[in-house]
Amino acid sequence: MAGPLSGVRVLDFTIFQQGPQATLVMADMGADVIKVEPPGFGDLGRVLQMHGEHRLSAYHLAHSRGKRSLTINLKTGGGGEIVRKLLPSMDVLVHNFRPGVMERLGFGYDEVRALSPGIIYAHASGWGGQGPKTTHPAFDIAAQARSGLMSMTGEVEGGPLPAGVAIADYIGAMNLALAVIAALYARDSVHHRGTEAQRVIRGETGTTDFADSTDLGGGSHEGHEGARRGEVREGGARDEGKRLGQKVETSLFGSAVASQAWELQTYILGRRKRRSGRGHAYLPTIWRTFETADGWAVVGGVGDDRWPAFCAAVAMPELEHDERFSNGLTRIQNIDALYPLLDDKFMAKTTAEWIAALEAHDMICAPVQDYETLLDDPQALANEYLLTVDHPTNGPTQVVGFPWKFSGTPASVAAAAPELGQHTEEILLGLGYSWEEIGALRAGGAI
Amino acid sequence: MAGPLSGVRVLDFTIFQQGPQATLVMADMGADVIKVEPPGFGDLGRVLQMHGEHRLSAYHLAHSRGKRSLTINLKTGGGGEIVRKLLPSMDVLVHNFRPGVMERLGFGYDEVRALSPGIIYAHASGWGGQGPKTTHPAFDIAAQARSGLMSMTGEVEGGPLPAGVAIADYIGAMNLALAVIAALYARDSVHHRGTEAQRVIRGETGTTDFADSTDLGGGSHEGHEGARRGEVREGGARDEGKRLGQKVETSLFGSAVASQAWELQTYILGRRKRRSGRGHAYLPTIWRTFETADGWAVVGGVGDDRWPAFCAAVAMPELEHDERFSNGLTRIQNIDALYPLLDDKFMAKTTAEWIAALEAHDMICAPVQDYETLLDDPQALANEYLLTVDHPTNGPTQVVGFPWKFSGTPASVAAAAPELGQHTEEILLGLGYSWEEIGALRAGGAI
Repeated sequence: MAGPLSGVRVLDFTIFQQGPQATLVMADMGADVIKVEPPGFGDLGRVLQMHGEHRLSAYHLAHSRGKRSLTINLKTGGGGEIVRKLLPSMDVLVHNFRPGVMERLGFGYDEVRALSPGIIYAHASGWGGQGPKTTHPAFDIAAQARSGLMSMTGEVEGGPLPAGVAIADYIGAMNLALAVIAALYARDSVHHRGTEAQRVIRGETGTTDFADSTDLGGGSHEGHEGARRGEVREGGARDEGKRLGQKVETSLFGSAVASQAWELQTYILGRRKRRSGRGHAYLPTIWRTFETADGWAVVGGVGDDRWPAFCAAVAMPELEHDERFSNGLTRIQNIDALYPLLDDKFMAKTTAEWIAALEAHDMICAPVQDYETLLDDPQALANEYLLTVDHPTNGPTQVVGFPWKFSGTPASVAAAAPELGQHTEEILLGLGYSWEEIGALRAGGAI
Repeated sequence: MAGPLSGVRVLDFTIFQQGPQATLVMADMGADVIKVEPPGFGDLGRVLQMHGEHRLSAYHLAHSRGKRSLTINLKTGGGGEIVRKLLPSMDVLVHNFRPGVMERLGFGYDEVRALSPGIIYAHASGWGGQGPKTTHPAFDIAAQARSGLMSMTGEVEGGPLPAGVAIADYIGAMNLALAVIAALYARDSVHHRGTEAQRVIRGETGTTDFADSTDLGGGSHEGHEGARRGEVREGGARDEGKRLGQKVETSLFGSAVASQAWELQTYILGRRKRRSGRGHAYLPTIWRTFETADGWAVVGGVGDDRWPAFCAAVAMPELEHDERFSNGLTRIQNIDALYPLLDDKFMAKTTAEWIAALEAHDMICAPVQDYETLLDDPQALANEYLLTVDHPTNGPTQVVGFPWKFSGTPASVAAAAPELGQHTEEILLGLGYSWEEIGALRAGGAI
């Protein structure tokens, strides 16, 4: 069985993390993602974190497995022509260049939809399409800083810190994928109200022909021309003109802000708190990282219902009826007295011993695992959040999977990311270019 | 114009953050989300962060605006019957109870799809559906701990810290929404290959009737019965039986692991680094939080192309040709010599002065904003990442928006989250219950 996005074709101009990680979601879900890269060096993400004799890039593998690579120099006429030939058969175009770049290359939304009226044209920026910072560049840490996320992270008495991984890029990628798939749904759903597709399906426009074409490009230009002129035509590769294409936008910054929705709302409504330190500034319960005899463990969420069991789990029965801690309200009022008692106690056992004791009492808890431990974690392996693939040059290689299971349309992990330009010839041959034309394009620096 | 998910109906049993924030995405995108809550107290998220004379909950407002609230005691026969009557008209069911809870209530996937064959049945768990921790409870901090995210966060010489907001819950929510919308796409797309819908549209099953019903419940049971018996029937409210319903699952833990894909892959391929501290352990470039005269500022990503401009921006021209720092490789080899020089320098100006200087040289930079500053940030306001709504009891209220812009099917921010059970009667009346029956259900504790 194929993934939930099988049949969807994505023309992917993205670079580094936010964009490529969004189109990775689409590739894992079965879409055909064509990664367009400049000849010679490609997406700069290809050279980050290269390892071993094969110069395998961890960054590229993590972000581009299962995509196809097409080299195009967009500044050449021959290169631009390839894009124009591809566009009519594409469902999605994605880029994360700064505002203005694609427009200068001749592939702004207006130009693209003229060639491909049904396309979902997606743009991920650093700061959003409006406002004084629109054209400024951004990377993960800048979004973490401006969004307030850093101000909440770090020791209570220390300076602000970023989350220790590129979490803003990841969040931005998820929002980009989400927006694209929602726009695809709006365009293609058989029961989405008010769309041309719906009217066509209901017979209101006199045709029910939504025949699908699986070949890349070719054959559909007349159909699109007809659609743009408002005619209803039979056939054509995809008849995008009958469906609702649109532009979707998201940003690193907006995604990082959205990720703090309830914390920000709490601040807005009047509760002003300090940095979260070893817990969470706004959660009125035990929510804490404790140092143990050999590491660290966390406990999160001890309401009144769990308090007696918690006291039993930590073998401190004297706490249960201590009036300072006897209910949720007083525990929070006296948390600065409670935490030192618990901090001392947790040093007396190992992390594994604490987790066993806490789990035996159904507490919400976990060990603080480092990467070495995580890579062997039975829970991560059982769910294929981490799994081993047979990489074509590296051999058996552990990789990060994905967090979804679809019972009917399973997503899948491809073994490798493409070599630079690996699929250029097959894609161009599919578009009708001859070997001679391909050779000329290569000689001219267009591919 | 309506949002991209308008027409989609979601029966939402979720609690706290991960689930409600996923169905918030659907509500913002135009879906009709019915939040099912126990009578009396409702989702426990309703009482978190309550403020002011109206006891307005920041947590509930942030997670449930625009949804409808239906109170049901699922442990009563009358309550279960309401769910069974609602299910045939629903596109999606979502819950984030522990594995086994919905099954014990009689609403496991098998029972639900018997009533609603086309439904997307979504379950978000803490740890994933397989493995030794499957039935253990989880909250955000536990997923941050077990996934390795905490091990990367914190001062280099200090202990592990969580990201200072509930980022694992947010990431889990985004993956849940993503999986649901992708499954809807697989079910409803007019060009998704291999589905019943596609065959129907192509005329292979002899009907093109995908007529939509906008009323809640009623009228479709016969259609579903027919579909379950494998017959092709004309009409029926939604004909889900012809489409591909499925179960989708995701988890807090899996999402937190996936959010570290390239960092984990880098570790797997052999590069072992310490905590990220004030930057990012794995990024081989200047990527750092600097203390300034009045706060903090970040700079991220100074490649060879930006190095001369960076030296100019920080007014340290002597660095540019210093052989320790003259190219990307030597800069990283000598970063422990470079950062102290920059740390000293950054103390000499205010954050605003530094950002102005850095932006003038097109550096990737940002101020570390606290929430107070963010709430007035012109960039956040211009993009409606933060906006003001007219809340029915609180009046004009600043809220967090969403990070997407759809040119054709705009998402929207509702002004308020529902009162507990606010829509119970309208939903039951729509299902055909009489006032007398509703009164009896209430008297019996079913609603």
